[in-house]
Amino acid sequence: MASLTHHDITILFVSLGILLASARILGEIARLFQQPAVLGEIIAGILLGPTVFGSVFPNLHETLFPDEGAVLVALQGFTAIAIALFLMVAGMEVDLSTAWRQGKTASVVAFLGIVVPFTLGFVTTWFMEDLFSNGSKHPHLILSLFIATAMSISALPVIARILMDLNIYRTDLGMFVISAAILNDLAGWIIFGVLLGLIDTGGASTWTTGQVLILIVLFTGGMMTLGRGMFNRLLPWIQAHLSWPAGVLSFVMTMAFLSAAITEWIGVHAIFGAFMLGVAIGDSPHLRQRTRTTIEQFISSIFAPIFFASIGLRVNFFTNFDLQLVVVVIVIATIGKVVGCTYGAKWCGLPNREALAIGFGMNARGAMEIILGLLALEKGLIDERLFVALVVMAMVTSLSSGTLIQWILQPKAPVRFSNFLAASRFQPALKGMNREQVVRELASLAAGSASLDATVIGDKAWEREQVMSTGLENGLAVPHARLPDLKQPIVALGLSEDGVDFDSFDGQPTRLVFLILTPQKDNGSQLEILADISRTFQDPKMVAAVFQSRNYTEFLAIIRSHEDERG
Amino acid sequence: MASLTHHDITILFVSLGILLASARILGEIARLFQQPAVLGEIIAGILLGPTVFGSVFPNLHETLFPDEGAVLVALQGFTAIAIALFLMVAGMEVDLSTAWRQGKTASVVAFLGIVVPFTLGFVTTWFMEDLFSNGSKHPHLILSLFIATAMSISALPVIARILMDLNIYRTDLGMFVISAAILNDLAGWIIFGVLLGLIDTGGASTWTTGQVLILIVLFTGGMMTLGRGMFNRLLPWIQAHLSWPAGVLSFVMTMAFLSAAITEWIGVHAIFGAFMLGVAIGDSPHLRQRTRTTIEQFISSIFAPIFFASIGLRVNFFTNFDLQLVVVVIVIATIGKVVGCTYGAKWCGLPNREALAIGFGMNARGAMEIILGLLALEKGLIDERLFVALVVMAMVTSLSSGTLIQWILQPKAPVRFSNFLAASRFQPALKGMNREQVVRELASLAAGSASLDATVIGDKAWEREQVMSTGLENGLAVPHARLPDLKQPIVALGLSEDGVDFDSFDGQPTRLVFLILTPQKDNGSQLEILADISRTFQDPKMVAAVFQSRNYTEFLAIIRSHEDERG
Repeated sequence: MASLTHHDITILFVSLGILLASARILGEIARLFQQPAVLGEIIAGILLGPTVFGSVFPNLHETLFPDEGAVLVALQGFTAIAIALFLMVAGMEVDLSTAWRQGKTASVVAFLGIVVPFTLGFVTTWFMEDLFSNGSKHPHLILSLFIATAMSISALPVIARILMDLNIYRTDLGMFVISAAILNDLAGWIIFGVLLGLIDTGGASTWTTGQVLILIVLFTGGMMTLGRGMFNRLLPWIQAHLSWPAGVLSFVMTMAFLSAAITEWIGVHAIFGAFMLGVAIGDSPHLRQRTRTTIEQFISSIFAPIFFASIGLRVNFFTNFDLQLVVVVIVIATIGKVVGCTYGAKWCGLPNREALAIGFGMNARGAMEIILGLLALEKGLIDERLFVALVVMAMVTSLSSGTLIQWILQPKAPVRFSNFLAASRFQPALKGMNREQVVRELASLAAGSASLDATVIGDKAWEREQVMSTGLENGLAVPHARLPDLKQPIVALGLSEDGVDFDSFDGQPTRLVFLILTPQKDNGSQLEILADISRTFQDPKMVAAVFQSRNYTEFLAIIRSHEDERG
Repeated sequence: MASLTHHDITILFVSLGILLASARILGEIARLFQQPAVLGEIIAGILLGPTVFGSVFPNLHETLFPDEGAVLVALQGFTAIAIALFLMVAGMEVDLSTAWRQGKTASVVAFLGIVVPFTLGFVTTWFMEDLFSNGSKHPHLILSLFIATAMSISALPVIARILMDLNIYRTDLGMFVISAAILNDLAGWIIFGVLLGLIDTGGASTWTTGQVLILIVLFTGGMMTLGRGMFNRLLPWIQAHLSWPAGVLSFVMTMAFLSAAITEWIGVHAIFGAFMLGVAIGDSPHLRQRTRTTIEQFISSIFAPIFFASIGLRVNFFTNFDLQLVVVVIVIATIGKVVGCTYGAKWCGLPNREALAIGFGMNARGAMEIILGLLALEKGLIDERLFVALVVMAMVTSLSSGTLIQWILQPKAPVRFSNFLAASRFQPALKGMNREQVVRELASLAAGSASLDATVIGDKAWEREQVMSTGLENGLAVPHARLPDLKQPIVALGLSEDGVDFDSFDGQPTRLVFLILTPQKDNGSQLEILADISRTFQDPKMVAAVFQSRNYTEFLAIIRSHEDERG
């Protein structure tokens, strides 16, 4: 294999396009079901892999996602870069002060989160030799140690992604789980490095365990002290003297590549270096929000989905599927991890509900088990049956983790007025000439789409309007009413090119009128919707932008695509 | 070669880090010498390649940038993706209406830009058989046709990058050169495809020439009509209904990957598909500026430099260097291309100066010749000597193109006040308590650093200040004076936390005082500096941001990193 041929490059682009598109589509479907997008992305990979697509169209699958050769290597290289960069972004989002504060508790959880599943995994494998044994040339003790290790490693990337998708990454709980997952994974990789040394001297492990430990401490300590200080001092210089934004962007990425190389060389995987670099550089107040956003958006939207979809590409989950083995592995892994981490968290004084959420959060495996399994498979330590069992375990725990955290914590999504709007309640050109006409016009719009009585709504809203005008700054008005029969809030919106006099206190004509109807019993949502509307339109440019939309879809596009800029 | 090993991944990250860092450093050095950054990036690759680094440290070079194996393939895959994405960005920046308007003239330039160098190249090779011949098994006619083709292909990526670096990409001239380069390259690749078919049936060329032509017309026409309309309709829907900004970002990238795959499959290289997709999707007014910026910044700052630096990696420019051959190839290529394009442009009525700039602009070769040369080398059509001559020709024409365009057009860089500031003329805490004290304090600061007389400057500026206050809105003041002895403008800046009364018309205390000294004879620069200052600080947030800087470097960092956001 010399280099990429014309044909290879075609295939590479096709497979990247298909991976990204499928990941996005299934990610969006997962979001529809209130699940983290990453679950959809992993499922996209399984559908594209040998399990489904490969078994229905084996030839086409072999062409698009070959098992060997240049395209495979190029895709592997790309996904290795993708996952390292995603971990850098995850690192940049870490709030160091929170992480420090939780360091001690996180260590306890990480410790028990390794010891319990490791012990359980070791004992089970040791005593169920018939089930796990594969007639390999390695002693059963080594196999037992390997399974024990595989049971105890979490998947930092998957956990980070799930927490981000659920919007709890930057909370105390999120930072806690991440701190524990880092410690857990570092320890897990060190143990795995030792194991590799036992079965294969002179191979992947260039270092003794003691050396690896010293190197990791040196690297992490250096990053958090010298590195952090240096980045904080270099960033203003780079932004002042090099071209903008190329200077700072390439500095961050160069450092990420080199840090990834260092930890990969030490033997604890490239993602740790990239993650620590992200933490060190993200901590600097001199890194502009603009730079963070560019890096974060590009990497989370493009690199991360391609990586997560690529996980399922290589494995067939039907052949080599040994139900008994799969069930034993999943049960042992889950019990060990959840019990260990939950108990650790409770021991440190966390409330039951949060402790359980931490337990299930740490239970997510994924890429790590698959990388580990691949290495072990190559060395002949495990057979295909066991490999598939490990991968299925990784998938099941990842898939259940997000669902269970969500079920336990019930995180509240921010209230957006746009969630209560609909195309049928959007009037791009109001006919009403004065306040009352406009309020009644919107009332009948709202009534029509929700089978309510237009007169009742109109009277209520107009009554409230007469008490005190709801005209706000920037040409907004927000007439509103509470209705006893309503099940959930309803918003109607009318646009008036010329404006209507709503007696607003800045004297400007009103051009955007929101009619907000909320259930009588629901005290909070009216205020939250009002707050969201005024936040969204606090910049007069947004009001002007809305008038460029010709239909409801274009209006929604403008609102949604400005959400992140409000920060 | 099964897959990327632990060691391969380490090397991959190290080499990416080194490539990116060197490209940035040499790019910045190029900018210091008023050259396009891409020149520095290409030179970085030559320094890192076998020519310099490889000949001094051959073993280390072989480890970091191996000639074969998995790391090479992974890096090739990454750079193939990088260049396609860069061309997509270049496409997004195309102003379609300008390009259409110039279509006819551009075709003439493209046509003559192929025919003249092709003829010249063919005749030269045909009659200088001794020099070019390499005892290959292919007839001399084929070799002559190949050299003729190599002489006539421009390098769209290099040209686009040079024009962007010089800030003339979006001008009429820039769009003209790009339109001509697209046509030129499309034709060149079709000819090359035919040639490949002649020496190797059943290989890379799956299509006959007629089929390729039809497919290209179908693809380009489809993109510009159906594709453009579809993207314009889909974008609002995606932004309204999918997650933001992941939805729109992954849509754009998916389309880019698939378009790249289509043109690579047709046989005219992936970059054309990505470019046309960029043009089609970039034309939509529904693609937000925010999305464009994220894509453009990440790709231009990270992917493009890595690609351009990777060009020089594989070739040793000293061994296999045949001076006579190199000189003949450069002279023929340059004369053919410059004469053909300049004449074409003049024929279409362009003024001499612009016609010459177009001629030299189109003369830039680069990646294309190297890809072409590599293919020909693999097929045994050319030998190493000729390959090196082609690569050197590509480098020399690329290196000279930017310099010559700049020398011919003398594009004027925008005046930035920060270019006339210096650390020694920056006073983070003004001592003066009133208008006159502050003006004289800044005058002595300016005088000290430029060996002028502080009293003279102070008197002049204070005299002007008394005629009418220079206090502007937002807490700015801009006292100024013209001095007969001054060679170039000087700006001094003082910050006052509490503010000084400058009698400004919004009644606010002045917190940022700029003293602007310009040469007596120079009419323009005073106004331009004033305009730049008021543009920079039109947003009150910028004034507040400046007060967070503790020294001159941090101040500069804030100013520079906000430049692009002013739009």
